[in-house]
Order: sequence, then C-alpha cells, then structure tokens
Amino acid sequence: MSSDISYHKISQADIDFFRSILNENQVFIDQENKLKYASDHTEDFVFQPEIILKPENTNQVSQILSYCNQKIIAVTAQGARTGLSGGALPIHGGVALSMEKFNKIISIDTNNGQVVVEPAVITQVLQNAVAEKNLFYPPDPASKGSCFIGGNLAENSGGPKAVKYGVTNEYVLNLEVVLADGSVIWTGANVLKNATGYNLTQLIVGSEGTLAIITKAVLKLLPLPKKNMLMLVPFHQAEQACQAVAAIFQQGITPSGLEFMERDALIWTARFIGDESVKIPDHIEAHLLIEVDGNDEEVLMKECESILGVVENFKTDEVLFAESQAQKDKLWNLRRKVGEAVKSNSVYKEEDTVVPRFELPKLLRGVKEIGGRFGFQSVCYGHAGDGNLHINIVKGNLSDDVWKNQLPIAIREIFELTVSLGGTISGEHGIGYVQKHFMDIPFGNAELDLMRGIKNFLTQMEF
Amino acid sequence: MSSDISYHKISQADIDFFRSILNENQVFIDQENKLKYASDHTEDFVFQPEIILKPENTNQVSQILSYCNQKIIAVTAQGARTGLSGGALPIHGGVALSMEKFNKIISIDTNNGQVVVEPAVITQVLQNAVAEKNLFYPPDPASKGSCFIGGNLAENSGGPKAVKYGVTNEYVLNLEVVLADGSVIWTGANVLKNATGYNLTQLIVGSEGTLAIITKAVLKLLPLPKKNMLMLVPFHQAEQACQAVAAIFQQGITPSGLEFMERDALIWTARFIGDESVKIPDHIEAHLLIEVDGNDEEVLMKECESILGVVENFKTDEVLFAESQAQKDKLWNLRRKVGEAVKSNSVYKEEDTVVPRFELPKLLRGVKEIGGRFGFQSVCYGHAGDGNLHINIVKGNLSDDVWKNQLPIAIREIFELTVSLGGTISGEHGIGYVQKHFMDIPFGNAELDLMRGIKNFLTQMEF
Repeated sequence: MSSDISYHKISQADIDFFRSILNENQVFIDQENKLKYASDHTEDFVFQPEIILKPENTNQVSQILSYCNQKIIAVTAQGARTGLSGGALPIHGGVALSMEKFNKIISIDTNNGQVVVEPAVITQVLQNAVAEKNLFYPPDPASKGSCFIGGNLAENSGGPKAVKYGVTNEYVLNLEVVLADGSVIWTGANVLKNATGYNLTQLIVGSEGTLAIITKAVLKLLPLPKKNMLMLVPFHQAEQACQAVAAIFQQGITPSGLEFMERDALIWTARFIGDESVKIPDHIEAHLLIEVDGNDEEVLMKECESILGVVENFKTDEVLFAESQAQKDKLWNLRRKVGEAVKSNSVYKEEDTVVPRFELPKLLRGVKEIGGRFGFQSVCYGHAGDGNLHINIVKGNLSDDVWKNQLPIAIREIFELTVSLGGTISGEHGIGYVQKHFMDIPFGNAELDLMRGIKNFLTQMEF
Repeated sequence: MSSDISYHKISQADIDFFRSILNENQVFIDQENKLKYASDHTEDFVFQPEIILKPENTNQVSQILSYCNQKIIAVTAQGARTGLSGGALPIHGGVALSMEKFNKIISIDTNNGQVVVEPAVITQVLQNAVAEKNLFYPPDPASKGSCFIGGNLAENSGGPKAVKYGVTNEYVLNLEVVLADGSVIWTGANVLKNATGYNLTQLIVGSEGTLAIITKAVLKLLPLPKKNMLMLVPFHQAEQACQAVAAIFQQGITPSGLEFMERDALIWTARFIGDESVKIPDHIEAHLLIEVDGNDEEVLMKECESILGVVENFKTDEVLFAESQAQKDKLWNLRRKVGEAVKSNSVYKEEDTVVPRFELPKLLRGVKEIGGRFGFQSVCYGHAGDGNLHINIVKGNLSDDVWKNQLPIAIREIFELTVSLGGTISGEHGIGYVQKHFMDIPFGNAELDLMRGIKNFLTQMEF
C-alpha cells in the first residue's frame, strides 16, 4: 500500500509492538531475511524492507495494518515473490508483509464446485488437490509450481489456459480482505452471479496489493476435462504464425492453449534445460503450440483436423503431434521455461503487451522495427490466443548508457504501438514497479485521477 | 446518480439551458412523457421526473451531467425501463436521462470476435446481428426482446445461458463512460486479459447507473454453437428437482440452460399465453427445463443420456424431448413468460435470491415455510443451474395491511436465509429501489461505507 506520501521509519517501539502481537517466528529484522525479502522475480531489483512480518491469521493482519496505518509505516504485501512487474518489492522499506503462513486449502466443496483457500497456497497444489475430485481450476501462470494463489489474485494472472477458460478474475466469487484501517470485509457472496452492490471483488482482484490484503478466497471450479491433444506447428514466417492465430478462432474453434514462440525462445530454452533433441531448421522463424481439450476424443480429433486445415494456408513444416503424456509434458515444459531461459542468458526486460489477437502480426512487426532502430534484440513469445505477447528485450552487448537512457524511449514506443492497436501495457503481469511510469500511455488524467482517488479513499478512510 | 443529499428542483433557467444544448425532440416536460418515464417494470411504482432528456451523443451526456452536477440536480439514467428492481425510477424527480437514442451497433469485428455497441441496442437485436456472422453474445435476460444492452450492463444481467456462459460482466472488455463531472473516460482496453490498473470496467458494470453513464461498450463474442437439445423433466417433488440440479453438474456436465419452474409457474404461464395444450398432472410439483449446446450432435446425445441417468434417481414422469425448433421455441417461451404471467395474475413482489446451487432445496423449503407462517403464496422459478431462484410473492387475498407491514418482515427472513446459505439478495436484477433497505443483510457497515465512499468519490470529485 505504497503511495508518494512520506513514510516513517520503523522504530524500536514499532518492533516491540509487532513482537507483542506476533510470535518469535513471525518477526524478522536480520540482514539475511531483509535481503531475501528485498527481491521478487523482476529483473534484478533489490529494495530491502526494514522488517519482515509473517502473520498467520486474519486478526494479525488486521492488527498490523491498523497499526501501520496509524503510524504511517509503508506495508508491501508479498506472496511467493515470483511476480514479474515488481509488485512485491518493498520500494519504501517499511514492512514486508509476507503472507506465506496462509497456506491452507480450507475446504473443497464438490457439491457446488467451489474451493475456499488461503492466499499462500501454491497454484499447482490447488490444481492437483481439486483434480483429485475431478474438478478444475484453470488459471495456470508459467510459475504455477511456485507462485501463490494470492499473487495470482493480486495480479489477475493468466497462463496458457486463459484463451479458453479466462484469467484468474473469472474464478473469484468472494474474498475476505483486510483494509488499511484493519477492517475485515467479505467482498461478495459464494455465488455464480451477483447483482448486489458494487463489485468489490473485482476491485480487489488485480489491484496488486495496493488496496487491501487478501486473507481468504472463494474460487469457482469447473468439471475437469478428461482429454486433450497437443500439437507443435513450425512456421517459416513468424508473422504468419501470428496470422494463423486469429484464423483458427474464425473456424469456430477455441483451443485450450494457443502459444507463440519465436525461434530464439525455443533454442534458448532447449539449451537452458539441456535438451539436445530440439533441432530447429534455419528456415523456421516461429512455432505455435496448440492444445484442445474436452471429454470426447473424436471431437478433439475433428478440432485438430480443422486446425490443420487452417495452418495449411500458411508456410509450415510438418506438424508434431504429442503422442504421449511424456511428450506433452516435454513440450509444455519448453514453453513454460522460456522466461527463465532468457533471464539466464542475459540481463533483460520483459514487457507483457496485449492486443486484440488479429493485431498480433502488426505488433510483432512493430517490435522488430523498433528493435532495429534502437539496436536491441528481442525474444517474443506468449499467449497468442489472447493476443498476449511477452517481449523479452535482451541487453546483450548494449552499453549501460543505451540500456538505461535509450531503452525506456524504445519501450515507450512499443507501448504506444500496443495501445494504438486497441491493446494495453500489461495482460497478466501487472503494472507493479516497472511499468508504473508508462501508465500515461493507456490512460489519460481522468482515469489516473480516478484510480488514485479510489486508492486514497480505501487506504486513508476508516471503515 | 441519486443519494440522500438535497436536490434542486428544475427551474426555467435549467430548461432553457437543456434546450440550448439539445434539439426540440430531445427535451420533454409534458405530462404524458413525465408519466411514461415515471415507471419501469418493477411492481407498480410511479415516480415522475421533472424533465426527460434524450441525448444522442457522448458530448451531450457530458454537458448534461456536468451541468446537473454543478446545479445539484438529480439525474436518473434510463434504458428500456424493463428492470425489475426499480433502478430506473426517478425517485428524486429531476432529470430522467433516457439513453434511447444511443441505439447503434457501431461495428462487429469478426477478426477479433468483438462488437462495439451503444447502450440502447436491444439485446436480441445484438444477438441476431452477431449470429449472422456466426458469433454469439450469450447473456439473454427474459426481457431480451425489449431490454437494452446498457441496462444489462448496469444491472449485470444474466438469463438462462449464464449457467454455462456466465453473466454480462464476463463479456465486457471496455466501456466509454461519462462521470458525474462530465469527464469522458474509457475504463479498459479491447483485450481479453488486462492487468493494467484497477478494474474500472467491473466497477461500472452492475453499478446500476449510480457511478457513471455508459455511452459505448466493447463486448466479447464467442463462436456460435451450432446445435442444441432441450428437454423438460416433470418432478413429483419440487425439492427433488432442486436436488437434481447439483447432481447433473456432479456428472461433469455443464448444461447451457437449467431452469426450474414450480407447478404454478407453468400453469399460470400456459393460461397467460392461452396455450391449452399444457396439461400438468396433479402429482407433478415442478419441472426442470434442461438445454445442452455445442457443435457435435453425438456429444450432445451422450450428455442428454447422462442427464437422464441422473434424473432417473428421482421421482419423475416421462421426459419430453423437444423434437423441432418450434417445440423448443414453445418451451422457452413458456419459461420466459413466467414473470409476466405472475404479474398479470395479481399484485406481486419478486425477489431475486441466489445461493450456491446445492443449497437450492433448503432455500425452497425455507421460502415455503416462511410463506406458511406469514400466510402468503409464492411462485418460484429461475436459473437453478446458477442457484438463482426468483421468488414471486403473490398478494392474492392478503390485506393491504399485511402486504405493507408484515411482508417486509417475511422478505427479510427470506433474505437472511439466503445469506445464511452462502448466497445473496440479488443474482441478476440488481438492488435498485426495492432491495435497498435489505442491503444490511448481505453486508456489514464496513462494506456499505466502502460502497458509499466509492460513490461519493466518483460523483463528487472533478476529474
């Protein structure tokens, strides 16, 4: 809950207060922990908190927020710190409020297809737990093996399945949250439709921890689809791969995954995970990884045939059908590791652009043109079915001066292009710390004043 | 945009101002129009506005709101006035801001599956226009032949298809809205996923015209499903019909419609539309109308068989399969006309309760028990797959005294039961004028203060 006001430093009296309401294993001021909680997965930022607090129940969160609100102490909510926009960085010092002890699945309601979870449940742990009961929680960010549901809620995370099943916010029925003054509220009800008052639930989802702290979530589940099929399509031209994306939807098919990977994304990832079996001919510029799911194998076969009919209209090499679960896992692992692979390769910046999907080829062409002018290399990949293109800008041999002073101008051009195509500057990573200075591109003063006002109202009022 | 502040009456100077910015056919102060715009479809309320304004572009809306904001004149937004919670009633007099001239479908983007509409497009007109391009806009309130998209957005409307496809808010990508001070903003971007700032779009959807006036909407479309199948299942016991609802979902099937109708609902509707072919044996307490949709007839047949397997576990009479489009239309028409039929039969009140679907039998039993104690008859029907039960309370022979003084106590009991089951007091009709005094049941002071504060901030600030 940071803003541009002047925060007080943590005093001994503050530490004493926190120790009076929390146990020994919930308050940390040692250097090792300060360094640990100073970073998330965003580039190479380090902002040390002055103290780390690990509440284990809603009442403790309430006491902490109420106290910090009165004492004007900065509080930064943290989950698994796997975010890519710096939303968990304690940029003002103060309290790092780590929610990691809120790690229980409270109940799975198979009668209603709902689950009640605490925010520090790992996304994949939740998915596996409900899958055992033939239920399905679709949102699956690349970091699903380590990220927390609370972070997914805060950033409105997506992932490959979003193209068919929607992003996190479509699965949130109700939230228990603590407001800045310590008030505890439920935002909605445990129902599939709700026309009762303002949508406080959706005001909190995606607000990146700046409006309230989530302490419980009631999530909607679907029946688990029983079958899926996966194919990898190599395209001679990257722009044609992007064109094929909209063409597939125009056939009336909604794949459960439709991922785009530029040549370098696959090559770097194969090298990163040490898989020498991945060979990409020189004439292949990009791949689409396409999944369909459902309950009926024949229907899925028909959908795959329709998709093949579409991609035949473009220059492609032979399509690879995954023939076993192991092969599916291998292909998905390649896709999921792209971010880490690029990160391991060079200092980089990742932009999370999103446009209407038919505009993807224009976005890709524009990014390459801007890269050409500013002299940077980019590796592009992402959830093409959603129009969500992750642009990894690689530092490589660029000088520190260009990286620091020229690149922000180039990124601004990329975002301006994105918005001019009907898109916006973050599809699923959030604004956080690193995109904050670009918010004037998608929004004018009225929109920004409205958001600022909502934040001021929620964080400065008593309820 | 009403609140409890003291509004100024419309003066001659105000009328002169409105005439200076609008044409002759956009400003009305005659008695006939005042009476026409005094009501919506909610019970028998009449609240006359002092003036009716019919702007035809965003700039005019902006000028009107800015002026009324400065002069402290009440403004009530109106669409088709088909709402059932009184959200369009000019309870403070002042301006009835009829959006009826905003009736254009601006563009249908088949490349991206999006449509840009003005708020006064009739829902069914939009559905038909996009269906011609093999696209599908699912939300379909009972009044779809006359209600406006703008009203659907304001009330977050549902309808039978919501059980599979979700309610209105899941189809809204971006809105152009005018704030109280006349500022014009876009709330989001034309994209399927968005993690860029607070979710202003979802703050406006469902806010019932109290936060801003919607002047354009960018909506998401799906591929149009090619086939559907419809069946009507007669149950010996109404509670068993409710139990069957959750059991169907537990088979992993998501019907595209799952409607519950009590015995009286069907009988009254058949009489209302003059259909003598509808005969209901004495031992049938309720029906489920169940639709599945998709692209593959064999898959739908399998789903129907699974559903039959479920309903066999309950006491039912023979299931009726609709064998032609005409028969489907007839069954859906029966369902859609229930509200009107009850209204034609007696003075009534309609409550729009919603609970987790497995709790429906408890809700139904509770409603009948409360009715028994307070001496009122109720006709229940609704979107059972969503847990959304419309409870029509019939005045019948009840005295005016009981109707006026006892019934609110009974309704309060019904809502308390609803909330105790994890539900809330409106699933799709909104709070409007008639449910306003029950908002303390689903929400505490903190939640209500939060909503009030958001409203005050949005309607009293300048942006």
